Amino acid sequence: MKDHLARCVAEAYAQALPHRGSGRVADYIPALAKADPNRFGFALALPDGTVHTAGDADEPFSLQSVSKVFTLALALRRVGSALWGSVGREPSGSAFNSIVQLESEGGLPRNPLINAGAIATSDRLIDARSADAVVNEILDFVRARAGDASIAIDPEVAVSESETGARNRALAHFMASFGTLRHPVETVLSVYFRQCAIAMNCRQLARAGLFLAMGGRDPLTGEQLIEPHRARRINAIMMLCGHYDNSGEFAFRVGLPGKSGVGGGILCIAPGQGSIAVWSPGLTEAGTSLVGAIALEHFACAAGWSVFD
Amino acid sequence: MKDHLARCVAEAYAQALPHRGSGRVADYIPALAKADPNRFGFALALPDGTVHTAGDADEPFSLQSVSKVFTLALALRRVGSALWGSVGREPSGSAFNSIVQLESEGGLPRNPLINAGAIATSDRLIDARSADAVVNEILDFVRARAGDASIAIDPEVAVSESETGARNRALAHFMASFGTLRHPVETVLSVYFRQCAIAMNCRQLARAGLFLAMGGRDPLTGEQLIEPHRARRINAIMMLCGHYDNSGEFAFRVGLPGKSGVGGGILCIAPGQGSIAVWSPGLTEAGTSLVGAIALEHFACAAGWSVFD
Amino acid sequence: MKDHLARCVAEAYAQALPHRGSGRVADYIPALAKADPNRFGFALALPDGTVHTAGDADEPFSLQSVSKVFTLALALRRVGSALWGSVGREPSGSAFNSIVQLESEGGLPRNPLINAGAIATSDRLIDARSADAVVNEILDFVRARAGDASIAIDPEVAVSESETGARNRALAHFMASFGTLRHPVETVLSVYFRQCAIAMNCRQLARAGLFLAMGGRDPLTGEQLIEPHRARRINAIMMLCGHYDNSGEFAFRVGLPGKSGVGGGILCIAPGQGSIAVWSPGLTEAGTSLVGAIALEHFACAAGWSVFD
Amino acid sequence: MKDHLARCVAEAYAQALPHRGSGRVADYIPALAKADPNRFGFALALPDGTVHTAGDADEPFSLQSVSKVFTLALALRRVGSALWGSVGREPSGSAFNSIVQLESEGGLPRNPLINAGAIATSDRLIDARSADAVVNEILDFVRARAGDASIAIDPEVAVSESETGARNRALAHFMASFGTLRHPVETVLSVYFRQCAIAMNCRQLARAGLFLAMGGRDPLTGEQLIEPHRARRINAIMMLCGHYDNSGEFAFRVGLPGKSGVGGGILCIAPGQGSIAVWSPGLTEAGTSLVGAIALEHFACAAGWSVFD
Repeated sequence: MKDHLARCVAEAYAQALPHRGSGRVADYIPALAKADPNRFGFALALPDGTVHTAGDADEPFSLQSVSKVFTLALALRRVGSALWGSVGREPSGSAFNSIVQLESEGGLPRNPLINAGAIATSDRLIDARSADAVVNEILDFVRARAGDASIAIDPEVAVSESETGARNRALAHFMASFGTLRHPVETVLSVYFRQCAIAMNCRQLARAGLFLAMGGRDPLTGEQLIEPHRARRINAIMMLCGHYDNSGEFAFRVGLPGKSGVGGGILCIAPGQGSIAVWSPGLTEAGTSLVGAIALEHFACAAGWSVFD
Repeated sequence: MKDHLARCVAEAYAQALPHRGSGRVADYIPALAKADPNRFGFALALPDGTVHTAGDADEPFSLQSVSKVFTLALALRRVGSALWGSVGREPSGSAFNSIVQLESEGGLPRNPLINAGAIATSDRLIDARSADAVVNEILDFVRARAGDASIAIDPEVAVSESETGARNRALAHFMASFGTLRHPVETVLSVYFRQCAIAMNCRQLARAGLFLAMGGRDPLTGEQLIEPHRARRINAIMMLCGHYDNSGEFAFRVGLPGKSGVGGGILCIAPGQGSIAVWSPGLTEAGTSLVGAIALEHFACAAGWSVFD
Repeated sequence: MKDHLARCVAEAYAQALPHRGSGRVADYIPALAKADPNRFGFALALPDGTVHTAGDADEPFSLQSVSKVFTLALALRRVGSALWGSVGREPSGSAFNSIVQLESEGGLPRNPLINAGAIATSDRLIDARSADAVVNEILDFVRARAGDASIAIDPEVAVSESETGARNRALAHFMASFGTLRHPVETVLSVYFRQCAIAMNCRQLARAGLFLAMGGRDPLTGEQLIEPHRARRINAIMMLCGHYDNSGEFAFRVGLPGKSGVGGGILCIAPGQGSIAVWSPGLTEAGTSLVGAIALEHFACAAGWSVFD
Repeated sequence: MKDHLARCVAEAYAQALPHRGSGRVADYIPALAKADPNRFGFALALPDGTVHTAGDADEPFSLQSVSKVFTLALALRRVGSALWGSVGREPSGSAFNSIVQLESEGGLPRNPLINAGAIATSDRLIDARSADAVVNEILDFVRARAGDASIAIDPEVAVSESETGARNRALAHFMASFGTLRHPVETVLSVYFRQCAIAMNCRQLARAGLFLAMGGRDPLTGEQLIEPHRARRINAIMMLCGHYDNSGEFAFRVGLPGKSGVGGGILCIAPGQGSIAVWSPGLTEAGTSLVGAIALEHFACAAGWSVFD
């Protein structure tokens, strides 16, 4: 069985490899624009601790929006269902940074995986603490999950995020004008920008996602991190909202909950089975790793892991 | 195992029963407004032919939008991937009858499960045939699946649909103005209105949905009705788009692909396991059976059938 | 003074002439697509009966949306302020055929000069009569104003309007679904399509508009056609809404109330002074006659007739 | 004639007086919420220097959005037509603080009289100077026009604007994200918030607006402040956009270019005749002074000054 999965990883990598270099590297932040479009990593983490990798699986990249999944888990653990007073859980049908729905829906973002929703989620996670304390909590969490204390924020990316963050500032001030946020805009953004700037590699990211595949329990440490029904629901939100206005396409092709980031990373959860991380910087128009999505499609098919089968 | 599932059905029915009478019966069609809000049926169909039922599982009701799933399957079987030239597969983030996105997206509806998308799907299914021929194909299909040749269209509902169908006419003419439709508007609507007016009971509907749980193969007749990957993808579309702007809520709570109709029916697919049909006419504001959704939430939890676990 | 105005007409014509052939002839109706982009007519009608013309001022063209002004005047005369229960009087900020606002604003169109609003205005003008009776009333009205009983509907254009009228059908059915219309959609559209297909030349159109410049009184027949405050308000609506999402540009450049049509005609009212009609089929992207608008800008400037001076 | 106008002022005041106390005082800024809804002032300034007043015409109030007219005039004087590269001149069809159109229209606000457009106009007026220098230019301009050097910014309102300015900050950051602004957001807002906090009375405001009625020339000082065609065009923009999504209603009822502010003031221009300022804090739902608009409607009618007659 494990051999089979190792073969599936190798096969998915091989099938996607020829597409390397397609897609467009994100250029809205100078630090991201420098990424090499030919890098491509794949890692599959299994509950027993095995990690199967291929390609540049040990090369760190910028998590960007993939980080929203961890912030969501931590916010749910901290404030529970009260989170849903600050953010919805419906697909937006819009781009990741759209502000239109906020206006017609009273400043309440549609879900925690679009930018506005992740900012609102960060706001709830802060819960009267300092921005630094919250950023450290997020870092500690991903370090513990990945079993690697060296995971850190890329300072250049963090500064770049803040300096070029006009659109996210607009979203935050807009929500603030409706009373959605409980902390000052710049405090919230300080958390948001830094969580996006966390650098991890595929091996670390795949391990860090395992608890979502295992009912909220980290199979490596044995800790029940969040309640089983919360893990299930995070997966549901990833499935419906993880790729903005391209979520349908991803569900259609891959059939697994996932979250993409403009750094080129995708975290994909196979409930009960394992956690997959891919990375390749070239993006589709919708901002998902082009090579990564192809690899995941092949892998899910080969492994027979679609939740819709 | 089967005993366990029978107990889950009984339990889910019992848990939801006290909510009977809550919600609002659809009143946009006179024929639907007469439905008794206290009716409540539940049926679970298993691949071996067993059907576990509770309550009014043998009482026919109007399929309404649940029928869109069958039309989608037939259209995919007939025209294959070419269907995606006429309709997308992304959540709309909007109400079932919204016209706004059609304007900004060139007359292409977001997915086959909103009204505009189902009209476009009917148009492709027609494929140069007469409206009557197409309606008969749909009827024959559900009769064969349910193993019951008595399934029929409720003529009163069909007439009512057409007479009060101004909004759907607007959607169809709007798409026609963009060239989305290949047949005359009234031909397409003649199919659309009649498919919505099919009357079935929970027992029949649960059986009719089984092929979607079993990779496109009807386990009762042994026929491979559609290719396995098409069944998987229909499930993905149901998961992401089956309840309009309430799809996230349903995925979050139930965790299974489903499709609701304003007649109070819901068809729910548990991939690899079985097919569930519930019916109770009282609706949530989003147009989903209130009691039905509660029952499904309890059942999925008790059976452990969420795809996100 | 009159000599001065004659010179202004000649000058405006000469200044605009070199732009002939620019712009794009409307092609959404085959009958309009045949128009020669090099035609250009200008007529200024004065309250004493004088008409100064230049170029193709005696060549008939299709009124298209210019007809909405006459329908509005007749509807106000017939049902008075009750009209404002069926249609608003605010700029839409949208294209002439947009349906978006109708959805968020309960099926009530923004103003009588966008397509949806003109359809709603036609509906009120019908007032339980036959479509033919209403079309005859409109025809009789423009014939009497122009002093020319030969004015007629272009039958080819009328048929073309109806055959290609999917977008307008969508608007009408959409309003019907909200209860905005009091008569069957096809009855209302039968009036709407035919009023758009009236053919007039600049000389006739300029004369027909004089009553709006003269407080609702036809200076040629002496009849008080509508109350003075209604004429004033029609002018206000033309100023704010006469050119769809290009109304600001027209007010900015010409400074007079006007209404354009995709046949290339523009009717322009100089309150207290006179009425101007121009025609040239090449349109701007916003659907206004390119050469016509240039001529009006020059004329208004030369005559010193901007209402904003 | 002057006696007639004095009577018109008295009459308009008397007719509107019974409506005092209707409408709702703006409460989005604490400093504004304290305004007495029973205050009501009226002033008519004529080119010869005469000012006819009624009621609380010497009581200062907060200009709020009325100030946008002066900033627009100064920006046009400073950068000329280049201003239209930063802001459009079409009615928005939306609320004063809507952000929706900015998203679909690339960060370019519809016109200089909605909040986003006034912020963009302030940005162009800054033209590489300090915020203080620009605020002083605006103050000097209105002081010179009103012939009263005591006009000042209400410091409490200015602080309040900034502290509660989340929505305007959102608009500014949103435009910044599209590259619409040339200066830092807080510099631009520092000008914007302070211009809104200028306090003037009706007598001063009416005099300050005279140059717009007189082709850009201040009839009291003899200075040609802006070119005649710019004055005309500012009037056109006031007519089409001066009252947000209520501009049509104002044009329909009053028939004169005007600009309202949520402080309860309205500046109204009668081209070639004079300038009128009214003030009463109770607002309609659209944010226009309820009593003020009634008074203007009566005055325009009595004086026969509608531009549409």
